[in-house]
Amino acid sequence: MSEIRQDQATKRWVIMATERAKRPRDLAGAQPSVEEQPERSPNCPFCPGNEKMTPPELAAYRDGDGPPNSPGWQVRVVPNRFAALSPEGELAIRDPYWFTNVTGVGAHEVVIESPIHNASPVTMDVEQVTRALVLAGQRFESLQRDRRLNYIAFFRNNGLAAGSSLSHPHTQIIGTPISPTNVRLEIEEARRHYDDRMHCVYCETIEKEHEAGVRVVLETEAFFVFEPFASRWPFETWILPKQHASALIPGAPDQVRHLAVALQATLSALYRGLGDPAYNLVLHEAPLRDSCEDYWHWHIEILPRLSTAAGFELGTGIWINTMLPEEAAAYLRDFMPA
Amino acid sequence: MSEIRQDQATKRWVIMATERAKRPRDLAGAQPSVEEQPERSPNCPFCPGNEKMTPPELAAYRDGDGPPNSPGWQVRVVPNRFAALSPEGELAIRDPYWFTNVTGVGAHEVVIESPIHNASPVTMDVEQVTRALVLAGQRFESLQRDRRLNYIAFFRNNGLAAGSSLSHPHTQIIGTPISPTNVRLEIEEARRHYDDRMHCVYCETIEKEHEAGVRVVLETEAFFVFEPFASRWPFETWILPKQHASALIPGAPDQVRHLAVALQATLSALYRGLGDPAYNLVLHEAPLRDSCEDYWHWHIEILPRLSTAAGFELGTGIWINTMLPEEAAAYLRDFMPA
Repeated sequence: MSEIRQDQATKRWVIMATERAKRPRDLAGAQPSVEEQPERSPNCPFCPGNEKMTPPELAAYRDGDGPPNSPGWQVRVVPNRFAALSPEGELAIRDPYWFTNVTGVGAHEVVIESPIHNASPVTMDVEQVTRALVLAGQRFESLQRDRRLNYIAFFRNNGLAAGSSLSHPHTQIIGTPISPTNVRLEIEEARRHYDDRMHCVYCETIEKEHEAGVRVVLETEAFFVFEPFASRWPFETWILPKQHASALIPGAPDQVRHLAVALQATLSALYRGLGDPAYNLVLHEAPLRDSCEDYWHWHIEILPRLSTAAGFELGTGIWINTMLPEEAAAYLRDFMPA
Repeated sequence: MSEIRQDQATKRWVIMATERAKRPRDLAGAQPSVEEQPERSPNCPFCPGNEKMTPPELAAYRDGDGPPNSPGWQVRVVPNRFAALSPEGELAIRDPYWFTNVTGVGAHEVVIESPIHNASPVTMDVEQVTRALVLAGQRFESLQRDRRLNYIAFFRNNGLAAGSSLSHPHTQIIGTPISPTNVRLEIEEARRHYDDRMHCVYCETIEKEHEAGVRVVLETEAFFVFEPFASRWPFETWILPKQHASALIPGAPDQVRHLAVALQATLSALYRGLGDPAYNLVLHEAPLRDSCEDYWHWHIEILPRLSTAAGFELGTGIWINTMLPEEAAAYLRDFMPA
């Protein structure tokens, strides 16, 4: 089992997961773009027919009646074979004063988004993207009931430069017993804004950005997609639900379909405009046992990895961006479905 | 002039520096290791004879009497030609309520650490490392007097994966008018620890790590080098002065020489043990106009870029490390000078 350690000076948490050092990689060096990949890859643990290469499945979406862990699925959720945290075991905090550490209890799951090895949210149809989101949501709701967990992270790494080790389309879920520092800070700032202004800072962002117009990428019935005013990276893109809600899950079924539409349009524009860029997509959801309904607003951040954070960024937390979000938004709008 | 923007939701600052998009790169693709580089590179703006390729020098260390901006220097400080912030202009905050931004006033300088293109702190002698630190310190003291500045960052990017665009050995100094989020947080936690325990958290770290022993890499008369208990990356290494001080600069001259010795030994061990790894080295110094003498403890963090931060790390701020710092320390100790 891994171990979660806390830095005394910053209260930052780190998961020590030595097993993960043995993860497989598609290829040493560069990862081919999805277009150069075959439809099925014989050694890919996420391809149909290779179900035995993963731990037994936790959930799957099947058209027909096939048994678990056999082909015929459209979406499949399995435990990560090189899990950073493990669902087995008791949550225990040791040495609470110094060398503080917590047992590596939690969840680490993989949502295999398609049986097709070289698919991507760009080439999938909206039904498939919706199915993947719905199944991920079910896992989320199931994990939510685990009282040992404090936060559930939901993210997608695309491309080697974004830390992805396998190219078969997948999303990951990590449930942690600890409260993530970044989530704490974001919620604290949102609360402070609400206390000062009686207004959700994200709702206000939508208003201001809608008015300004120049950074808007897409506006649908339910979602607002834009390049944030203080974008850290070129083409950093946020997807916000227009209706205030602190959590996506559980959401109304048509909300999930609306999200699938906005998500696919956005990822397609990035794909077509930038040529399958490496990116991290991260859901910013409310923590499990903190009620922050009035002031927290769930959203998705897409962070293309087109530049490298260096010493200045890592040391100070100030980012240097070489592209104005106004320019990035104008460029992406040209790649939006009509 | 660039523009410094603030994200309303997180209060994070971003420097919009579109000029930097035009920076030169040594080579498209991979950067050769220092050993494969020539001693002098005809197109390198930091090589002797090419002084005209940089803006006029701000300071230099010369053995003889040569005029500024001509060869004969051992260390040379110049403004960054693709500066993120500019020393010219007035500091002004605009739209303090929404779309908050500040004029990109500040400093961005380069300390060229050696006239030799393929030198590195590993191959330089201790005198040369000391000279580079002393000259950087002089620039630091000069910038400190600029009342527009709030913080001075001092960092070294080594290798392409660490965001370095030129391989000629150099360190950078960036002076910002804004207070860096990370610095604020670190100092706030240090203050809280001091208020709770009447003890500097970094002094206590040295005591506890000295006692534990397993993560110590090097202990000299004046410096303590170790792999932190909650290391974020394999081979993350911190250098702490044994004597409590909130700022390195201005430091006693023999303190700087002691630092040069510890620094060179540490970088040499990383170089010999890991084969010239990409890394970021960052000085964590006190801010200019915050007195935090009792509870802040200056130090250096070296962050080898041997793994990639992915969606989980960027979203939550929790890191996953695949190598225990105890193992990293044992490995590095074998490469320490006897």
